[in-house]
Amino acid sequence: MTMDRITIAHGAGGEDSWFIVKKLIVDRIPRSLRRALSGIGLEELDDGASIAVDGKHIVFTTDSFTVNPLFFPGGNIGSLAASGTINDLVVMAAKPIAFMDSIVVEEGFSVDQLREIINSYTSILVKYNIALIGGDFKVMPKGSLDKIVITSVGIGLSRKPIVDNKLSSGDKIVITGPIAEHGSVILAAQLGMLDEVKELKSDSKPLIHILPVIEKYIDYIDAARDPTRGGLAATLNEWIHGSNYTIVVDRSLIPIRDEVRFFLDSLGIDPLQVASEGVAVFAIKNDVAEEFTEELKKVGEVHASIIGEVTEPSDSILRGKVVLKTEVGGKMILRASSLNLPRIC
Amino acid sequence: MTMDRITIAHGAGGEDSWFIVKKLIVDRIPRSLRRALSGIGLEELDDGASIAVDGKHIVFTTDSFTVNPLFFPGGNIGSLAASGTINDLVVMAAKPIAFMDSIVVEEGFSVDQLREIINSYTSILVKYNIALIGGDFKVMPKGSLDKIVITSVGIGLSRKPIVDNKLSSGDKIVITGPIAEHGSVILAAQLGMLDEVKELKSDSKPLIHILPVIEKYIDYIDAARDPTRGGLAATLNEWIHGSNYTIVVDRSLIPIRDEVRFFLDSLGIDPLQVASEGVAVFAIKNDVAEEFTEELKKVGEVHASIIGEVTEPSDSILRGKVVLKTEVGGKMILRASSLNLPRIC
Repeated sequence: MTMDRITIAHGAGGEDSWFIVKKLIVDRIPRSLRRALSGIGLEELDDGASIAVDGKHIVFTTDSFTVNPLFFPGGNIGSLAASGTINDLVVMAAKPIAFMDSIVVEEGFSVDQLREIINSYTSILVKYNIALIGGDFKVMPKGSLDKIVITSVGIGLSRKPIVDNKLSSGDKIVITGPIAEHGSVILAAQLGMLDEVKELKSDSKPLIHILPVIEKYIDYIDAARDPTRGGLAATLNEWIHGSNYTIVVDRSLIPIRDEVRFFLDSLGIDPLQVASEGVAVFAIKNDVAEEFTEELKKVGEVHASIIGEVTEPSDSILRGKVVLKTEVGGKMILRASSLNLPRIC
Repeated sequence: MTMDRITIAHGAGGEDSWFIVKKLIVDRIPRSLRRALSGIGLEELDDGASIAVDGKHIVFTTDSFTVNPLFFPGGNIGSLAASGTINDLVVMAAKPIAFMDSIVVEEGFSVDQLREIINSYTSILVKYNIALIGGDFKVMPKGSLDKIVITSVGIGLSRKPIVDNKLSSGDKIVITGPIAEHGSVILAAQLGMLDEVKELKSDSKPLIHILPVIEKYIDYIDAARDPTRGGLAATLNEWIHGSNYTIVVDRSLIPIRDEVRFFLDSLGIDPLQVASEGVAVFAIKNDVAEEFTEELKKVGEVHASIIGEVTEPSDSILRGKVVLKTEVGGKMILRASSLNLPRIC
């Protein structure tokens, strides 16, 4: 495979992203420097990283937000950055404590729009009692950046951070709510179709309200993730890749709003490949999966559902793969990264 | 003052930057959320922030690097990002422990160039035994970003982080080496003059070697900073702004290479406004300033010099101001931000 130029797929969160991050970054770092102070690091490539200080786990996450358009039904790049950073901490079982933001903006950008974006970001922090402790602010000359990039850094504390490498046979796959909402509205906006599909709206929201449920079941959770870029398909494939098990999910059990399904069907796009920004997915021990799902409903995630399970592979070719049961009883292998949507987050 | 559109000055690190960061960001955050866990935060707007966990100070810094050109005499955007992040920790008296990087790159960017940039970044981390524990990688479609933005996040540990708000009368101002090297070569490159001024070279380098000296004199250091955007003038003005003292610096004592001086003179630019990327400046108690400077020389900073001092203002209009003694014995007020060079770091 020749690889001369960066493609959109390299940034889409799927297998191509993993490939370039591994080849260009991870492989350059000696194993001993892929983590610090007995924490979670590059080896895990999880939602976040951590260090351990006197038995306390300090969890870190950073993401650059490039979403286009900047304002969309359900949010804007500022609310998306705050929610996305919070959610990366929440699915590590970390309570968000302090954030930093690094903003790069194009010369000539509207100060009013910038104010609105920053207000959306800071309002979420303030609402959830998260400090903003530092950051950076740069301006690039007109024409050298399409409007704005926001990099958000989250710092959280966790009693026991969740690392997504403990899947075992019998684990149930639980999802908090309907998928593909964020990706659908961004796609519609990029295609100029927002007027036609007014019922689409980003699900972008902080998931702090589910943190107590995560903490309560922390000893039973074997993986947790917010399925953003690459959607549910990318998350499940990352979890199972290289393992001896198979994840089997039942498409008919996956919550999805009809409006989202119809919109994506009309484009021939599988909702399982499309980003959510207010959803978490878990692998959790079978014996508590039902009550965990009920507890998620009690804190407001009324569509929380068990959608599948981790199993021994029924055939050796299914080892390390995700199997999707279709609505008509068929089975197919669900792969990651068939959709390369740029600037979705 | 009307302010409709973002200008280059808003990102140049001087008074306009401070104004927009204060108005749009700091003012939106309640005082209680400008720091976390008794650490250093937005109030200080220092090189970095911190949290305190069981008496240990964990120091954080983040910067987005947008330098143009990406490759320049003395380094590239990758080595600059690593050095800059390290130096922000060092001048907080923090030992760099772990980094994260968030890279946004334009579709079509050369994978070979990206590899070289990332290698430069990671090589510095590896050399200084700093872990890389996480990050993000995004691609923006062709035409929406001029090549690449790298956001680097540094995490360090400090026994006692330096906050730049303890200046007192009698403190000496000490600088580690010749100023304006980085800004000069970037300026020359942006003006297409690199062929004419081949002797210019960025001073971009990690300052980890001075950390033991900083730690030794930690109880005597009242401020420490790496004078990047806005140069020495911006740093000294930020330190003294709002204080009851005056900083008096003697231009003839400030180390600067002739080649840099001649180049900047030819453009009418004051070197005190021009960025360094491998220099630190300190305010330190008078009685140890000489030996501190000697120790800096011993660890390789052979041009380390005492260049001025903090004094009671000789006139009330000089309160909170920086006074520059000229080579011919005159005095002038040194202001920040007379040079707005974009994409210098």
